[in-house]
Amino acid sequence: MSKSFPQPIDSVQMPRFGAVATFMRLPLADDPAGLDIPIVGVPWDGGTTNRPGARHGPRQVRDMSSMMRRVHPTTGIAPYEVARCGDVGDTPVNPIDVMDTLGRVEGFFAKLHTAGCRPLACGGDHLMTLPILRALAKHRPVGLVHVDAHCDTNDAYFGGHKYTHGTPFRRAVEEGLLDPKRTVQIGIRASLYARDDNAFSNASGMRVVYMEEVERVGMEAVLAEARRVVGEGPTYISFDVDGIDPAFAPGTGTPEVGGLTPRECFTLLRGLRGLDLVGADVVEVSPPFDPGGNTALVGATMMFELLCLLADAIARGR
Amino acid sequence: MSKSFPQPIDSVQMPRFGAVATFMRLPLADDPAGLDIPIVGVPWDGGTTNRPGARHGPRQVRDMSSMMRRVHPTTGIAPYEVARCGDVGDTPVNPIDVMDTLGRVEGFFAKLHTAGCRPLACGGDHLMTLPILRALAKHRPVGLVHVDAHCDTNDAYFGGHKYTHGTPFRRAVEEGLLDPKRTVQIGIRASLYARDDNAFSNASGMRVVYMEEVERVGMEAVLAEARRVVGEGPTYISFDVDGIDPAFAPGTGTPEVGGLTPRECFTLLRGLRGLDLVGADVVEVSPPFDPGGNTALVGATMMFELLCLLADAIARGR
Amino acid sequence: MSKSFPQPIDSVQMPRFGAVATFMRLPLADDPAGLDIPIVGVPWDGGTTNRPGARHGPRQVRDMSSMMRRVHPTTGIAPYEVARCGDVGDTPVNPIDVMDTLGRVEGFFAKLHTAGCRPLACGGDHLMTLPILRALAKHRPVGLVHVDAHCDTNDAYFGGHKYTHGTPFRRAVEEGLLDPKRTVQIGIRASLYARDDNAFSNASGMRVVYMEEVERVGMEAVLAEARRVVGEGPTYISFDVDGIDPAFAPGTGTPEVGGLTPRECFTLLRGLRGLDLVGADVVEVSPPFDPGGNTALVGATMMFELLCLLADAIARGR
Amino acid sequence: MSKSFPQPIDSVQMPRFGAVATFMRLPLADDPAGLDIPIVGVPWDGGTTNRPGARHGPRQVRDMSSMMRRVHPTTGIAPYEVARCGDVGDTPVNPIDVMDTLGRVEGFFAKLHTAGCRPLACGGDHLMTLPILRALAKHRPVGLVHVDAHCDTNDAYFGGHKYTHGTPFRRAVEEGLLDPKRTVQIGIRASLYARDDNAFSNASGMRVVYMEEVERVGMEAVLAEARRVVGEGPTYISFDVDGIDPAFAPGTGTPEVGGLTPRECFTLLRGLRGLDLVGADVVEVSPPFDPGGNTALVGATMMFELLCLLADAIARGR
Amino acid sequence: MSKSFPQPIDSVQMPRFGAVATFMRLPLADDPAGLDIPIVGVPWDGGTTNRPGARHGPRQVRDMSSMMRRVHPTTGIAPYEVARCGDVGDTPVNPIDVMDTLGRVEGFFAKLHTAGCRPLACGGDHLMTLPILRALAKHRPVGLVHVDAHCDTNDAYFGGHKYTHGTPFRRAVEEGLLDPKRTVQIGIRASLYARDDNAFSNASGMRVVYMEEVERVGMEAVLAEARRVVGEGPTYISFDVDGIDPAFAPGTGTPEVGGLTPRECFTLLRGLRGLDLVGADVVEVSPPFDPGGNTALVGATMMFELLCLLADAIARGR
Amino acid sequence: MSKSFPQPIDSVQMPRFGAVATFMRLPLADDPAGLDIPIVGVPWDGGTTNRPGARHGPRQVRDMSSMMRRVHPTTGIAPYEVARCGDVGDTPVNPIDVMDTLGRVEGFFAKLHTAGCRPLACGGDHLMTLPILRALAKHRPVGLVHVDAHCDTNDAYFGGHKYTHGTPFRRAVEEGLLDPKRTVQIGIRASLYARDDNAFSNASGMRVVYMEEVERVGMEAVLAEARRVVGEGPTYISFDVDGIDPAFAPGTGTPEVGGLTPRECFTLLRGLRGLDLVGADVVEVSPPFDPGGNTALVGATMMFELLCLLADAIARGR
Repeated sequence: MSKSFPQPIDSVQMPRFGAVATFMRLPLADDPAGLDIPIVGVPWDGGTTNRPGARHGPRQVRDMSSMMRRVHPTTGIAPYEVARCGDVGDTPVNPIDVMDTLGRVEGFFAKLHTAGCRPLACGGDHLMTLPILRALAKHRPVGLVHVDAHCDTNDAYFGGHKYTHGTPFRRAVEEGLLDPKRTVQIGIRASLYARDDNAFSNASGMRVVYMEEVERVGMEAVLAEARRVVGEGPTYISFDVDGIDPAFAPGTGTPEVGGLTPRECFTLLRGLRGLDLVGADVVEVSPPFDPGGNTALVGATMMFELLCLLADAIARGR
Repeated sequence: MSKSFPQPIDSVQMPRFGAVATFMRLPLADDPAGLDIPIVGVPWDGGTTNRPGARHGPRQVRDMSSMMRRVHPTTGIAPYEVARCGDVGDTPVNPIDVMDTLGRVEGFFAKLHTAGCRPLACGGDHLMTLPILRALAKHRPVGLVHVDAHCDTNDAYFGGHKYTHGTPFRRAVEEGLLDPKRTVQIGIRASLYARDDNAFSNASGMRVVYMEEVERVGMEAVLAEARRVVGEGPTYISFDVDGIDPAFAPGTGTPEVGGLTPRECFTLLRGLRGLDLVGADVVEVSPPFDPGGNTALVGATMMFELLCLLADAIARGR
Repeated sequence: MSKSFPQPIDSVQMPRFGAVATFMRLPLADDPAGLDIPIVGVPWDGGTTNRPGARHGPRQVRDMSSMMRRVHPTTGIAPYEVARCGDVGDTPVNPIDVMDTLGRVEGFFAKLHTAGCRPLACGGDHLMTLPILRALAKHRPVGLVHVDAHCDTNDAYFGGHKYTHGTPFRRAVEEGLLDPKRTVQIGIRASLYARDDNAFSNASGMRVVYMEEVERVGMEAVLAEARRVVGEGPTYISFDVDGIDPAFAPGTGTPEVGGLTPRECFTLLRGLRGLDLVGADVVEVSPPFDPGGNTALVGATMMFELLCLLADAIARGR
Repeated sequence: MSKSFPQPIDSVQMPRFGAVATFMRLPLADDPAGLDIPIVGVPWDGGTTNRPGARHGPRQVRDMSSMMRRVHPTTGIAPYEVARCGDVGDTPVNPIDVMDTLGRVEGFFAKLHTAGCRPLACGGDHLMTLPILRALAKHRPVGLVHVDAHCDTNDAYFGGHKYTHGTPFRRAVEEGLLDPKRTVQIGIRASLYARDDNAFSNASGMRVVYMEEVERVGMEAVLAEARRVVGEGPTYISFDVDGIDPAFAPGTGTPEVGGLTPRECFTLLRGLRGLDLVGADVVEVSPPFDPGGNTALVGATMMFELLCLLADAIARGR
Repeated sequence: MSKSFPQPIDSVQMPRFGAVATFMRLPLADDPAGLDIPIVGVPWDGGTTNRPGARHGPRQVRDMSSMMRRVHPTTGIAPYEVARCGDVGDTPVNPIDVMDTLGRVEGFFAKLHTAGCRPLACGGDHLMTLPILRALAKHRPVGLVHVDAHCDTNDAYFGGHKYTHGTPFRRAVEEGLLDPKRTVQIGIRASLYARDDNAFSNASGMRVVYMEEVERVGMEAVLAEARRVVGEGPTYISFDVDGIDPAFAPGTGTPEVGGLTPRECFTLLRGLRGLDLVGADVVEVSPPFDPGGNTALVGATMMFELLCLLADAIARGR
Repeated sequence: MSKSFPQPIDSVQMPRFGAVATFMRLPLADDPAGLDIPIVGVPWDGGTTNRPGARHGPRQVRDMSSMMRRVHPTTGIAPYEVARCGDVGDTPVNPIDVMDTLGRVEGFFAKLHTAGCRPLACGGDHLMTLPILRALAKHRPVGLVHVDAHCDTNDAYFGGHKYTHGTPFRRAVEEGLLDPKRTVQIGIRASLYARDDNAFSNASGMRVVYMEEVERVGMEAVLAEARRVVGEGPTYISFDVDGIDPAFAPGTGTPEVGGLTPRECFTLLRGLRGLDLVGADVVEVSPPFDPGGNTALVGATMMFELLCLLADAIARGR
């Protein structure tokens, strides 16, 4: 716990609109060794079945993340005082080959995991969470707090294709990476192709919190339920920005009207302090559908919330 | 109740961004005969006294309606299983002649009404609801659930012009198409030209629910009041997107800050299940003021809610 | 109280999109003498440390203020019936000299103050509130209702620069213009450069209402607290649009996710009726970051709320 | 010829982004009497058969006209030194009544004509040129330099409607306002509804310069031909921004690919110095289709070119 | 040659902004049999190595193609009088499988070819031209007029992937579909990964016309050279909108500054009248990078030019 | 001349939309020592008298510069084979203090100059060229090729302020940094505040090439004249993107209609090969006025042209 940890560029020396855009204005780190929380971009949308563009997410999130400062306004967590953080760049990807990319991403995160890091990732479409979990949860299944408009537990698309951004959490359960009993999905609300679209979530034991429940019981109650579900074990948080209403986050491939507000998300994420977090991600920021950049600002803000949670977990673990 | 009813294009064969854009990806129907719910565009804004553009609404709503799937996420209504639905194209209009257009639109809907359909319309500016009511309510007045920032019961504009998008419901009462005692107006909040702008609504017996009341009592209570007002008789739902706050629906001609959220609208519309609906519309989507398209997505989503209500009414009526 | 007071252009003669854009479509007044409420633009962002553009605010707010009508929808206040209002143009400014501009702005408002007016200002960045207070509060400190995402009570930036848009209220306290015990700051939520960023606010006795408190207790309770803090004395209202969530008001230089909704702001401002108001402003509308103009519409709407409060204060004072 | 003529606001006192937006930053003039060149907005698009929005043109052109300075860069004409110029506001219009508006616009310009002015107008759609010519050319037909992608000499639309933005110059010839033998149409290139769309132009003796001719012979030759056609008599210039390629001027209702460049337009307009001009207009700027504002900047720049021509004609006439 | 051929919707009955958007407002044809020129969308960008979005091209081009009328402004070709044209919808595609899509597209065009049609296609990324050529040129190689900023004759990307939008014409030569000696590439200007990027084009005998040559010799000379190269044999025209400068066509995935103007493209395409055309396409319109839609208007306009060429070829062939 | 020189990221490993955005995808260099051509951002617009935003230029230009590849398409120059290039980040700046910033920028470039580098800078507003020249031309005046719509040789603004983006080249002459006899200004066309706005340019002996001359004689002739003026001595190139027409480069603070095309700029810059270049810059890219990013793409492309010129000068000098 030291000021000698990597720090964001000082705004007195360089205003926030200046300098090469890195996540949170942190130094670029060629080597994750020695970092507690490497922040990683996954510039890829090869699993996208509808509107593409999430491959451009990491760049615009980096740009808008300059708006983040150093201390959390309500929890007072100062992540750079308690954890070694850095921008480790983007994973390699292949824009025209799904399986090749899954391997490249898993390899990148496997190195981070081996180095003992708890990574924070920025997508990219939601399929990327699968290779991340392959890297982080290889040895035992993890719990999951999953914010999203969709369950993403479909089986296959387009005549049998098993790897799309609508299938990662089914694959993760099948591969033993995810404990469905310790999985909670929050913000679900999309209309359905068929009545049983969410059947796998239900059958496997995931707790699905539809928007109607959020509206009815309020986010404080949802938070309590989420904590009950994931419990004390190792847990991952996956935050799809389409969980948020498209008024706040229009830049995403599959927007669904009637979503969470950022304030509700703050209530949720701030309330998750104390979990045994192994990593986290924010996915599906698609800049071409939001040139103004508010979606990326929302994404960067949620990443800062997650960063504070990860840093706090590290500080508690010391 | 049959899968042989017209179905949206299968997303496995044709991704949602593909194919000619029809409402809900339904087949284009040259002839409404045999349809239960014809979906109709009215590409016209000749009644607009302020910012034009709603004439472009039907096209952009068709485009964004591709995001709708087949089954309602909370009610489970599957409209295409219980009702014959189709896109019957746009009504003829005349962009430079108000009275000519009123006749053309009425004629189009009269045919639908004669064929026994319960149409779902997409505007276009709000004056279009008048000729629709002339077609659907010729023989007896109907009740109305009216979502809007404005009462639209003014008398005249610009020195006596009686037919603008600020006057349709006054005309409808005067013509015996609308039962003001069975009319509820929800979301009203615009500043006023004069203290008595909404006098006709009040004097005729309409129930006006201002935003302050929504904020104070909540949408569940407003819903109960709306059901009380419209009762059991034949009812029409007219949904002006400017009832929604412009953060969610900026693409409209007369935006008013401080409006409904889409989640409140879901609470309202889903709660109206069971009404004796004769038709419905979504109006005032003006794409030039929202190139991003979120307003059209909101419009398409509200149309899907209305479609489910209409389909359910048909199923119950069988 | 007379219809002979200056009135907005009649929409029957000139539709709202027509005519030269003045605030609220009021007549341009070369001379503030005789006006109760002069409306003033301050086209300047020389105090901006991050993203510029607020210098363009007054023009776009003027344009969107054409959407305002004459009578408040819930309070029924008709400002042009009870107060002499007019657009007195913009203050002189110097885009490349901070201190020169502070003098020019103060001089302009000093004349308004001498003439007995209660001005309503439109920014421009938040530093402009300092010279306004120098003009209006020269003889005794005033109370302040301050809506913002940031406390704006920093000491200095970039190695000692004391006059930026992050420092006006500290300067105002130091200069005896502002009574910190009668100051309430609402909507505060930005992440912090350092733990003590808001120390001056706390130490000087300002009441800081963070967003978490708003979320927890609701705006009605915050309103009661605000009225308690400012009490009966002379009071100024300063409304930074970044207090509102960027989904509603993206066009601002330092957006912070998770802010107030316009409906909460209505609850607050409408509840402030009866204060002894000496003036008010809306600041930090930055059109280049919101070409659609919704931020300017929000700004114009809040100005209309403030105008009604000022007019009501004048009517009560007669 | 005096500095005591009305002058634009001094940029040293008020930067160009400041102050209420008037044409060329000139004073607002309530009374055209005493002005040589009144600049007038016509905020109306009621003659538009396709995409609306030109009603918003005058405001955005006023805004962007702040970029114009005082002296022409190549001709050296300083219009405000040799002519009394002013912004006389917008004509009254009726957004829902074509014939009423034609009367209002004609009345406004008739007063200017009676006062001996040579007006410069800003549209609005192209139908507005008809009532302007009715005011200015009542006593004798005038010649016309007409820049446009379309001939605008159709007979009727939608079953007999004679007054649309596609018909003004046919009506003007029929009414004896326009001498077709002294009319040149430059930039014509739109695809045709039928082979004889431009038949009236040809039959009446207008000189139609298609884009292919411009491309082949160059604008210097077209200029010479235009001067030959209009000759020495009284002449009006009507400049439709859709004459320019939509890359330069996307904000217009009926864009046609492959148009004039602004540099070609400069060659043309600067070369028309010396004509006996009775007035001029720039029309069809439709801001909703170009939020960026470059079309309005192009429009304002062409208006400055026309203003210099008018001022020069006045100076020569003294 | 008959008016009984399929015709675009009559604009007198339905204004151009109305009705479901089909290519050129032509009827939707379920069956291409009986059509001379089927117009086809290929909503796919799975071969895109850089910025995606061309999958959305066909929809936006359909929308903007409503601006096209019926008769060519300079050649006088009236395609719907001399050829049976129709919108046959989109080919099936698979957004996450390149090889599957290549098969689906080829199959669709094979049916059109078997039916004797000369198709006009709208992309979609440039890889789609390969399966089209597989369908149309199976029995003998064709000549090619290729407008583009890039040669698209690379060998492989990302470690051996042979099918991307940078490789179609190399594959087409290798597969015997394209005669490189009868191939001309016009508008080439992109910076190079390596000095030999365009080596295949040169070595195989294609005629590469760089922008510098266009600038130096003019498009009339380039046209003559293009006609010399392709000669009398069967020829295909493939028009990548990135051949045009991004000021005119920003909505494309790989824009290159300094490109062709639409006027130069008109000179080229109109001058190609008389070729033995077997089909044509316009590709790489990517709407997410141009919400304004000018790129789609340019694309639709070039498609109308190609449609006239195809129709004229058919008329001459009768 | 070695492949061991710093190279852009390999697109096979990392697609062009991936990785942290640096200029030309070059490595970030903490230390300029050992570099031939350091590329530098100057994120500052404190000299801007009109529309701000150029402080955001370097970030968006870095982002779009990913579109540049490695070899020049017509000259064949491969800059990274012949010169050591790197992104050395942004200079320190102070957004609220002009004089402080001038010192910071000069200091940064002085170090580069001392290290023997020939820097390529990206603005930022045009005032930044003054401190660059102070660093690079301290010991002897340099010649200048200056592309711009404005001469930028005004004396003072706003009552005596000598340092704005309208004055750098007058100051540079006065300070002996610039040889006016070896200075050529190309693209000048802005309207004037007064007839003598450009007097200093003329009186000091600069060669001013107005757009009218470019249009009349063509860019080849202008190029010859430019080479004649600057001759053999040390020369700097300063490229203001407002020299280009705003259709191609709308994102700039002071756009002027009727400017250069990118193709003309290519003719100019490519023809300047062989000059004794000491450095170069591209300035006035203002992203808030062009969210689409084409201006930044134009800026990045012109930087690549300048980079090739600098690399070639270095190669020739070895």
